[in-house]
Amino acid sequence: VRGCVILRPYGYKIWELIQEELNKRFSATGHENIYMPMFIPEKLLQKEKEHVEGFAPEVAWVTHGGDEKLVEKLCVRPTSEVLFCEHYKNIIKSYRDLPKLYNQWCSVVRWEKTTRPFLRSLEFLWQEGHTAHASFQEAQQEALSMLDIYKNFCEKILSVPVIKGQKTKHEKFAGALYTYTIESLMHDGRALQTGTTHNFSDNFSKAFDIKFLDQDNNLKHVFQTSWGLSTRLIGALIMVHGDNNGLVLPPEVAPVQIIIVPVKTQDNLVIQKALELENKLREKNLRVKLDLSDKTPGWKFSEYEMRGVPLRIEIGPRDIKNNCLSIHRRDTQEKNIISCENFEPEKILKDIQDNLFLKASLNLTKNIFEANNLEEIKNIFSKQLGFIKTNWCGNLECELKLKEITNATIRCVDLEEYKFKNQKCFCCDKPANQKIYCAKSY
Amino acid sequence: VRGCVILRPYGYKIWELIQEELNKRFSATGHENIYMPMFIPEKLLQKEKEHVEGFAPEVAWVTHGGDEKLVEKLCVRPTSEVLFCEHYKNIIKSYRDLPKLYNQWCSVVRWEKTTRPFLRSLEFLWQEGHTAHASFQEAQQEALSMLDIYKNFCEKILSVPVIKGQKTKHEKFAGALYTYTIESLMHDGRALQTGTTHNFSDNFSKAFDIKFLDQDNNLKHVFQTSWGLSTRLIGALIMVHGDNNGLVLPPEVAPVQIIIVPVKTQDNLVIQKALELENKLREKNLRVKLDLSDKTPGWKFSEYEMRGVPLRIEIGPRDIKNNCLSIHRRDTQEKNIISCENFEPEKILKDIQDNLFLKASLNLTKNIFEANNLEEIKNIFSKQLGFIKTNWCGNLECELKLKEITNATIRCVDLEEYKFKNQKCFCCDKPANQKIYCAKSY
Repeated sequence: VRGCVILRPYGYKIWELIQEELNKRFSATGHENIYMPMFIPEKLLQKEKEHVEGFAPEVAWVTHGGDEKLVEKLCVRPTSEVLFCEHYKNIIKSYRDLPKLYNQWCSVVRWEKTTRPFLRSLEFLWQEGHTAHASFQEAQQEALSMLDIYKNFCEKILSVPVIKGQKTKHEKFAGALYTYTIESLMHDGRALQTGTTHNFSDNFSKAFDIKFLDQDNNLKHVFQTSWGLSTRLIGALIMVHGDNNGLVLPPEVAPVQIIIVPVKTQDNLVIQKALELENKLREKNLRVKLDLSDKTPGWKFSEYEMRGVPLRIEIGPRDIKNNCLSIHRRDTQEKNIISCENFEPEKILKDIQDNLFLKASLNLTKNIFEANNLEEIKNIFSKQLGFIKTNWCGNLECELKLKEITNATIRCVDLEEYKFKNQKCFCCDKPANQKIYCAKSY
Repeated sequence: VRGCVILRPYGYKIWELIQEELNKRFSATGHENIYMPMFIPEKLLQKEKEHVEGFAPEVAWVTHGGDEKLVEKLCVRPTSEVLFCEHYKNIIKSYRDLPKLYNQWCSVVRWEKTTRPFLRSLEFLWQEGHTAHASFQEAQQEALSMLDIYKNFCEKILSVPVIKGQKTKHEKFAGALYTYTIESLMHDGRALQTGTTHNFSDNFSKAFDIKFLDQDNNLKHVFQTSWGLSTRLIGALIMVHGDNNGLVLPPEVAPVQIIIVPVKTQDNLVIQKALELENKLREKNLRVKLDLSDKTPGWKFSEYEMRGVPLRIEIGPRDIKNNCLSIHRRDTQEKNIISCENFEPEKILKDIQDNLFLKASLNLTKNIFEANNLEEIKNIFSKQLGFIKTNWCGNLECELKLKEITNATIRCVDLEEYKFKNQKCFCCDKPANQKIYCAKSY
């Protein structure tokens, strides 16, 4: 089916490692996993006006079950806000039931016209958090703190630096009051929306009539958030760290962290030492693989380079004689011979993890430009892609003009508060009141 | 949507624990997880004749994407054989590519007329293993060894004893040569098909033209298997172990293994000791919860009993003074006071786990009856439900007659080899050649 991809073992393992790390963070902050049905009846989707307008044009419709035509057609979830609302309406009665901090891992379908592997597929895997709170402030706090968790996760685990900000009204999620985003920069200078969190205020709870009896004995509507990360993260990994030899994976999410290649597979002593090393590393809970196949060492070197394995260890008779290991780092392509006593694999992997983040951060910083007006923006984009930081009045016309003239969009509004002294909008003559990041995306 | 259920945090956690344990077993036997698209084009589903006849009447059809009518309708996967076949056809070229041992965790949809929570829902979560092998023997070995893994998992982790056997030709999976099954007995005497494995021989590989170049330089069709377990296991847990007070969960899959209830929540020393105990148990990697809410101890006792928490610890001032703990086992409803030094929580949980299996095994054994003919079968079922072991000639007419007259079905054919001396089929006058288990199911 157009726009659907298969996640094969190596790619799916990256996703499992991402899930494991995110689950730790979600659970440490009191979130619980649940599972909702994948079908949404048409009427339910229509309950929140903005939401249905945003999603109805891009859903897959189930119209028949077996040979029978359904009385009401069902859509395959493009996202599950309305399902959670319907559930919350049934289970939330009192302030004692709040907050509800639920998360779901599932696949969703969006009938996109143009698809692109990992970045925009018709079906994709993701997690969607959905929470309900007693106050607006608490919901706002949740939306912002999940954004921080996302940023921390991307930077520490994926070594992908991100810019944190708020989506404009025009770009926000259908049905949200505020949408927050983390944006990352790909190798080719395009921006990728890596994750978003939304504060719905009471938009959905009014549409779905989700009320609770508060401590003051008044019936009130709950305040809600949602937030999501998807397999698009794998696309980000590939396009942030990859090079001409293939993938470069940060050790935290590498299915194989260390590959051991015996240089002579006919030599019994070499095999024995390689097996010993494999066991030693496995006991340290490292993800290690020993390749004893009859392929040549050269073939193995380029295969595991292409697969982005962070560290390669070569063992040959000379290394054994000298009590040494030949190690090769994928990130720097450096080769070193070190004595077995000095070999600290955890430290090297940590170095690789940090170095990838540093490299990507330098690349991001180098590609953030400042501009004062459309002319300067056009000029910068004519030379290279990247993020352009500029000032904005906040009006939709200027936002649309940017898109029309440069084909770039406002990726986010900076969350920092700025003092604007006589600065003007990049587009019109009105005073600016927001700092924005613009970029081209996919 | 009719027949769809929500898995709330407590139920979903059981599923996560089941997944964790099964993943360990799959990975230890060389299986890898992957993810396939959820949509199957109509033409692909039709490639294997028996398979499409079995599944087409019960699939959900997507006919529209957004506002557009699709040229070819897509079904939401009821199972993914055809998707794996299409993939295997593309990635298997040589004997070096075999075996392929893949597994997928996903949700599937079957448009059932009658649904029943956990046992038969329109959408359910499951794992489906799909493997490809160079020889028939290897595929047969895989189907049988996965059946053993399923049996071991059910008995060790869920404490649910099962009967292992083969499905009759009439009851086998659409497209399979042989279907193997594990069947368990619910409290009410009905049988539940808990898991199945299938040997497809080369049925699918011929339909999909999946060939490999063997070591002898000949192009051959691969031999395939598939096997699956679903959230139905949670239904089995409930209906095998539950009693009039609610759930009884085996410790291995209990989201909370130990609940600590302080008898006086206003007493600081009690709270302090309860917190110390909670920490101590958590450090042992036990899933422990301390309930400090302002509900009464009596409310908490029945709440956690209903939720099937295996072990309850009550702490009050008197226990602290005597350096004791009051413990209550959910499985036996026994209450004991033991000194803190003698408290070995892992041992008690292990005892509970074993005791639940023993209890369920005794119940199973007690409810397996022997019969020689239809009259005896009818007679037994008129008194109670359960499994009836009898002899069969292997003919469909006798199988259908059983169903017609007793409303029971042949759950499985025993895998042991028997010597039949002058024994006749339960139904006709022909000599018997198989031992079968009959029962009523849901």
